[in-house]
Amino acid sequence: MDKEKKPSLSAPPLEKGLVMIFTGDGKGKTSAALGVALRALGHKMRVHVVYFMKGDYPYGERESLARFPNCDISIFGRDCFVDPRNVEPEDKEEARKGLEKARDVIQSGDYDVVILDEINVAVSWKLLDVNDVLDLIKNKPEKVALILTGRYAERRLIEAADLVTEMTQIKHPYDKGVLSQRGIDY
Amino acid sequence: MDKEKKPSLSAPPLEKGLVMIFTGDGKGKTSAALGVALRALGHKMRVHVVYFMKGDYPYGERESLARFPNCDISIFGRDCFVDPRNVEPEDKEEARKGLEKARDVIQSGDYDVVILDEINVAVSWKLLDVNDVLDLIKNKPEKVALILTGRYAERRLIEAADLVTEMTQIKHPYDKGVLSQRGIDY
Repeated sequence: MDKEKKPSLSAPPLEKGLVMIFTGDGKGKTSAALGVALRALGHKMRVHVVYFMKGDYPYGERESLARFPNCDISIFGRDCFVDPRNVEPEDKEEARKGLEKARDVIQSGDYDVVILDEINVAVSWKLLDVNDVLDLIKNKPEKVALILTGRYAERRLIEAADLVTEMTQIKHPYDKGVLSQRGIDY
Repeated sequence: MDKEKKPSLSAPPLEKGLVMIFTGDGKGKTSAALGVALRALGHKMRVHVVYFMKGDYPYGERESLARFPNCDISIFGRDCFVDPRNVEPEDKEEARKGLEKARDVIQSGDYDVVILDEINVAVSWKLLDVNDVLDLIKNKPEKVALILTGRYAERRLIEAADLVTEMTQIKHPYDKGVLSQRGIDY
């Protein structure tokens, strides 16, 4: 790519849309996906974020992403957190709807970057079948970049990805009683 | 925090602004900081991004961040990449200016979240003295959140931080000839 030129107002598509995974137990997975979205949006690319498990409603990013006419978001999952030891039928149904939406969005030709937020967790907790997610990856148009986030990324997803970063928690202020903060974590 | 309510139009400050570090060799450090910025901006917080080493000019994110009246950015460093084995006086001078700017921004009371992008590398490559960065952290107003990004975060910076995530590269498409992509990496 020519980095010297300023971006034009119309975005040429990516030559090759990579499959990227941000996983691990540290803070920064969804944040990193959002950061990539911010870059892509600045280059006039079209971005779609599919939230798979948003008990923790993404207020902050939703307000910000709404400023971009070239960004859309879809939100699935119940308002509460999923209990992995006690998955409700509604959790599975929501995840299935999210997967269908993701398939439509990826195949539509309307987006350059598609973020599948927390899909790794949805697979790990058996809300989704890993084979269905592998099919999403295998059948995606060449030029569409995919970003999968969430802990517990399955081995087969990692094998299918082009780029994988594990976010490892070195230090977290849990012990100072700070669980999550407005504007930082949601 | 009450997560049920929608954010109001004026942003109350953070009760405690954490010091966060995103380090490691994997993709996602600056991206994660930008994602946090996106959230904070959506909550009407005020964000300042200080770029310490932007040979790789942040076209995409710059265009996007410019949409937010509550976001400012400052860019330091020469247009080319710094060679750590051959640091030029101008590299040090640029880093010093960046540090001064960061100090002003942090102390100004005008920002809730301040991102010091690639400052870990600037310290590691001796463009900056680690003690000066520790002073920034030690003297910051309680309510200001700081995010330090870049590989090679020094032990003393990690000790001074509240939250540290190491982004570890599990897989990268270097071997497919993909170095960096418009809209994804810059």
